[in-house]
Amino acid sequence: MTEPRVTNCWLNILNFPLDGRSCKPRNDGLTMVIDKGMGLDETRDLLNLGGQYIDFLKLGFGTSALYAGDVLEEKINLVRSYGIDIYPGGTFFEVAVLQNKLEQYLETVKKLGFTAVEISDGTVDISAETRKRAINMAAEKELIVLTEVGKKDPRTRSPLSDLIRQVLSDLKYGAAKVIVEGRESGKGVGLYDSMGQLIVSEMEELITTLPDPSVLIWEAPIKEQQQELLLRFGSNVNLGNINAHEVLALEALRVGLRADTLKLVCR
Amino acid sequence: MTEPRVTNCWLNILNFPLDGRSCKPRNDGLTMVIDKGMGLDETRDLLNLGGQYIDFLKLGFGTSALYAGDVLEEKINLVRSYGIDIYPGGTFFEVAVLQNKLEQYLETVKKLGFTAVEISDGTVDISAETRKRAINMAAEKELIVLTEVGKKDPRTRSPLSDLIRQVLSDLKYGAAKVIVEGRESGKGVGLYDSMGQLIVSEMEELITTLPDPSVLIWEAPIKEQQQELLLRFGSNVNLGNINAHEVLALEALRVGLRADTLKLVCR
Amino acid sequence: MTEPRVTNCWLNILNFPLDGRSCKPRNDGLTMVIDKGMGLDETRDLLNLGGQYIDFLKLGFGTSALYAGDVLEEKINLVRSYGIDIYPGGTFFEVAVLQNKLEQYLETVKKLGFTAVEISDGTVDISAETRKRAINMAAEKELIVLTEVGKKDPRTRSPLSDLIRQVLSDLKYGAAKVIVEGRESGKGVGLYDSMGQLIVSEMEELITTLPDPSVLIWEAPIKEQQQELLLRFGSNVNLGNINAHEVLALEALRVGLRADTLKLVCR
Repeated sequence: MTEPRVTNCWLNILNFPLDGRSCKPRNDGLTMVIDKGMGLDETRDLLNLGGQYIDFLKLGFGTSALYAGDVLEEKINLVRSYGIDIYPGGTFFEVAVLQNKLEQYLETVKKLGFTAVEISDGTVDISAETRKRAINMAAEKELIVLTEVGKKDPRTRSPLSDLIRQVLSDLKYGAAKVIVEGRESGKGVGLYDSMGQLIVSEMEELITTLPDPSVLIWEAPIKEQQQELLLRFGSNVNLGNINAHEVLALEALRVGLRADTLKLVCR
Repeated sequence: MTEPRVTNCWLNILNFPLDGRSCKPRNDGLTMVIDKGMGLDETRDLLNLGGQYIDFLKLGFGTSALYAGDVLEEKINLVRSYGIDIYPGGTFFEVAVLQNKLEQYLETVKKLGFTAVEISDGTVDISAETRKRAINMAAEKELIVLTEVGKKDPRTRSPLSDLIRQVLSDLKYGAAKVIVEGRESGKGVGLYDSMGQLIVSEMEELITTLPDPSVLIWEAPIKEQQQELLLRFGSNVNLGNINAHEVLALEALRVGLRADTLKLVCR
Repeated sequence: MTEPRVTNCWLNILNFPLDGRSCKPRNDGLTMVIDKGMGLDETRDLLNLGGQYIDFLKLGFGTSALYAGDVLEEKINLVRSYGIDIYPGGTFFEVAVLQNKLEQYLETVKKLGFTAVEISDGTVDISAETRKRAINMAAEKELIVLTEVGKKDPRTRSPLSDLIRQVLSDLKYGAAKVIVEGRESGKGVGLYDSMGQLIVSEMEELITTLPDPSVLIWEAPIKEQQQELLLRFGSNVNLGNINAHEVLALEALRVGLRADTLKLVCR
């Protein structure tokens, strides 16, 4: 593994306005990046610059099935060499369940070198029994299990109590983290309203039922969402669906080196 | 030409939810990418990853006049080596007509190695006679002729009947495909309203007059537009003005490996 | 320094619709790019393609503190080799003032090889005396001084007369250019309303008080803003917070090789 050296000489003269940022490997303060199809060189360039700020890389949607030749294997190896977990988008899991190929799917995921897997039912209805079985099976294969709650389509949104029950049940059966759906857009989905604003009452009800808020990863593709979650939960909130080109900008937000979080410190 | 190998082992265990996706070289299911100024390395990296999903690369606006040194020639050769057609943005054609340099323009396009050309009047008024002459002249030079219909400025929008007449006439005179204007923004232009929604009644009237809907390439920069056109016309609708970084994401949408098209299959 | 050769053969047959574009090194027509965390390869690729169209590169927010290992030093050297000035985001200056480390900050900026510095109070309140002292101190260290006017938070917006006084005072004390705040979003900040529209009356009042409008750099991240400023002030207006991937698209807009400025010429 390439050990990224920790930052540079700026640090010697200034302190980060927000402190306490956790270091890798970490259990909170996780950043999950959504990759919509970065080439190998672009990936290498990004990791060389800011690999230490990325914990999970998700190959979004079904894009990983579409890579030419050996690019997928090379990419998986590259990403892992930076101590980053990598997994295919949840769409794949849903297709595998639909096609009755859950076990082959998980075996292939493992064999290809992915280190994690997403168990979701954002699009397809999946029974509680199948979900439980999938979590178990993936955990047995020593894949990090990330489950996802929240329907992608606002018309099929379930009550908050169901969502809370699902989070608790997923954790019980072996999920390492539960992702709160935000999609690529961050609007009209999960706990975001149609303008992308966090529905605070629901978020608070969800949080109070949990032993520890760090079991959640919030998909938060929009800067205002990242900012609001950082202001509520601190530097080390887990955030997902971060655009690859915004990794350093998010990290600056986490440590107070960006206007929107700096102003907090100056009040 | 570099022959991109067809995808990877995922395919062996799962089927694409939407099938029948055409392969290159193809006459439908075309993806035209708008390039707003990618460097050589970025281009190479993209093509290495997903060149098989790109049919046309348009060097947007007049950017191709602004490339430093030999970058343009190298880029043209690189793109062609992946079996992708490449052409300069339509703005150039309109400037050439304004400056009475149509023939020199087309000759230079050909000499530089571009394989296609766009004939449009999105900004400048161009007579039917000049348009016809340009199509003929470009076709004689063995350039693939892509014409474009729809004004860029909504205030100068012409009636649908004129647009339909233009499509039929362009095809008659030698256009390979006719592009339906969507601009970079996808809003308030062509058959999109100011919110970027497809004007369905006009689209349907246009389609019913055509021998074959595959003569059109729809500029559809917004994901919801791509999705709506895919749902109406199937995996193999021709789409244009696709952002370079969304090529794999679009392909996932085409084959059903993305929530928005997967849910179709599960209904 | 690598001397980028001036464009290519297209120029021999067509004239730019808008002419008089200034060449580097230039005092007006400046383009300042905001870099949210580009890797070394991506930066090299961009500069190789269009380095001649970039005058300033700003490492946005506090991102420059977060670069792994030697990437920052390499990047500074790379950017300078293209004759481009480079500086860290203004957040840093504000943190340095808060932590009473102004002088060490400016020394480190200089020692690292940055050629310019931003003096702003977008987030933190900084006294007129400190601002003046900072401008003086930076100028003495032979850093190009860019000051910024306009609060980032619309709720703390000051009257236009204060902003005008600030511009004149900054110039008097040694600022090379004054940046009009537009943020990354271009909305509800500086002279933009919440929809990102330029507040024309304020802009005009500002301009009439200045000896020369070229002392300003307008942060204009949105295409419509760039277009409006180009139409008002001509090809050589100074524009900032340009996305790295839009450098060539902006240059096309500057010289009339894009529909939105071409149509001007055709009226």
